[in-house]
Amino acid sequence: MNNAPIDLPHPYLLFLGDAADATFLKTGLGLRDWARDLCVAEYKCAGAAATLGLPVMHPRAAREAGAHALVLATASIGGAIRPGWIPCLVEALEAGLDIISGAHDRLSDIDSLRRVAHARGRRLIDVRTPPAGLPIASGRRRTGKRLLTVGTDCALGKKYTALALTRAFRQQGLDADFRATGQTGIMIAGSGIPIDSVVSDFVAGAAEVLSPDADPAHWDIIEGQGSLFHPSYAGVSLGLLHGSQPDILVLCHEYGRQRIVGLPDFALPPIGVAIDVTLQQARLTNPQVRCAGVSLNTSGLNAGEADAALAASAREWGLPVADPLRPGPALDSLVRACLA
Amino acid sequence: MNNAPIDLPHPYLLFLGDAADATFLKTGLGLRDWARDLCVAEYKCAGAAATLGLPVMHPRAAREAGAHALVLATASIGGAIRPGWIPCLVEALEAGLDIISGAHDRLSDIDSLRRVAHARGRRLIDVRTPPAGLPIASGRRRTGKRLLTVGTDCALGKKYTALALTRAFRQQGLDADFRATGQTGIMIAGSGIPIDSVVSDFVAGAAEVLSPDADPAHWDIIEGQGSLFHPSYAGVSLGLLHGSQPDILVLCHEYGRQRIVGLPDFALPPIGVAIDVTLQQARLTNPQVRCAGVSLNTSGLNAGEADAALAASAREWGLPVADPLRPGPALDSLVRACLA
Repeated sequence: MNNAPIDLPHPYLLFLGDAADATFLKTGLGLRDWARDLCVAEYKCAGAAATLGLPVMHPRAAREAGAHALVLATASIGGAIRPGWIPCLVEALEAGLDIISGAHDRLSDIDSLRRVAHARGRRLIDVRTPPAGLPIASGRRRTGKRLLTVGTDCALGKKYTALALTRAFRQQGLDADFRATGQTGIMIAGSGIPIDSVVSDFVAGAAEVLSPDADPAHWDIIEGQGSLFHPSYAGVSLGLLHGSQPDILVLCHEYGRQRIVGLPDFALPPIGVAIDVTLQQARLTNPQVRCAGVSLNTSGLNAGEADAALAASAREWGLPVADPLRPGPALDSLVRACLA
Repeated sequence: MNNAPIDLPHPYLLFLGDAADATFLKTGLGLRDWARDLCVAEYKCAGAAATLGLPVMHPRAAREAGAHALVLATASIGGAIRPGWIPCLVEALEAGLDIISGAHDRLSDIDSLRRVAHARGRRLIDVRTPPAGLPIASGRRRTGKRLLTVGTDCALGKKYTALALTRAFRQQGLDADFRATGQTGIMIAGSGIPIDSVVSDFVAGAAEVLSPDADPAHWDIIEGQGSLFHPSYAGVSLGLLHGSQPDILVLCHEYGRQRIVGLPDFALPPIGVAIDVTLQQARLTNPQVRCAGVSLNTSGLNAGEADAALAASAREWGLPVADPLRPGPALDSLVRACLA
């Protein structure tokens, strides 16, 4: 039995499919912006207009340039693998690349891919498939320091907050690793566990495996999933919270969001309540946990509006508040609060 | 895609394997005591000494007496399927019975069983395998009434509390169904969903499927799993809590238990804290939820000690407290509080 996180072959050739423009390339944009050193080049179907601005290479050239895997980098995380892509994927296998996918369809369910991969000794890696042999959580305290991003809702910046804080910690000379729990995060990190695909009994155990014992000065910055306040996913978030045993929580919220996306009957909690409830739950496995501040997604605001919103929110909530994608004094203050 | 709970063929022939005495027959005892009408007879390997006191029948006789499935009724829920049992299981398939197992080993991984089952058109049903096609929870409120048993820890009576309350509700003429979430419970009910084997993203959705819209006067009495206070399983419990949308909680506790079983570093919460925290979480999907009282497992006490413990606990906690396996005024009082 293997009980280590998924470990992906890299660097990557990013496959853009038949995307017409970059709005369909959420995974690719994430990889380009947060794991540029893992991205050798891009490749797409004939006639596709989208680009990430990377060098364009055929799989053979990418392999010669050092790539080890082709990544499906279109927005269809959770979506389909389109029939028109298959010839390109076969080319990649024949050029000696493994294939990495976060799509709902499994690569290994596609006969032609399975056949060629088998003949060429290449791997078809579905990032949604958790490693086998995950343990039941033990609750044992681990060495090293841990920060977990948590959210008032899904899809508001837990992954990018964790990535930005990892970058900021490293810029201060700290030893910090981003620990990925979702498909895009795993591709960016090159490893991780897709926590929401783990059988529920093993979620906290998977979180324990994801951030193992480490040097006392080392930081694991763990990508949160879901929200304790989301009626569909709170159990996932709680298992991840307990297994992560965070020393520090950063609460992620989107400016102005008042209702759970897609479930308008459910209101987001007030920030103070969200922090109190999350800390109360987190104390089960780490009594010393504290909340360092709030990561506020201000992507809908211009720079001036964002600065004003961050300052007003910090006053209202009595905590450091920053948008981690907007470097500046607010982010510096949030990072200081994490390390205090 | 099927998104209904598992539905088991019944009535059953209970297979006792090579058990030497009834202490190895936890599943069988549960079936005999709580689903006697589903149990046609018992059957065991030559020389096995254990008995449940049911008529002994060969699979052919049991089939003629109306049985539709042989159930592995030994204690090895979560355990192995022993090689010495295989000839008996083959006999059952050849006699026209399906086979139902809650063991960790999968029936369909055993070549000889798979071959015979295929040839005879019989089913091999692993109760640990959840139905396919479970949905993401919607959070939509459903009609009918729901009671969920929750616990201060695992393995202290959530299943038997739910069964006993279902029996008590029916004795009052109420329309009530026991909704099973674990292997033994599913065998007793003849249907259910093994909630701890569901992929974490779908746990709350599975709980929604398990207790669908019903007549406004109908009660679903839902078997709890794990505990919000258990560092390994709290996420499972929270997903089940949110998807169940209970109107009534009954908190299950074992008299004198102070530490999580197997994890002595973790103390059980005080009863008042356990109720407050559980209600706080439960309000996300049912703001009207309330706790009717405490189910106290007094199996370690004699009758006089148990009565004293129940009375003292009721005074201390200010709530109805009963051991549902000890009928009497305390249980009547707990049932009244559920229905108040």
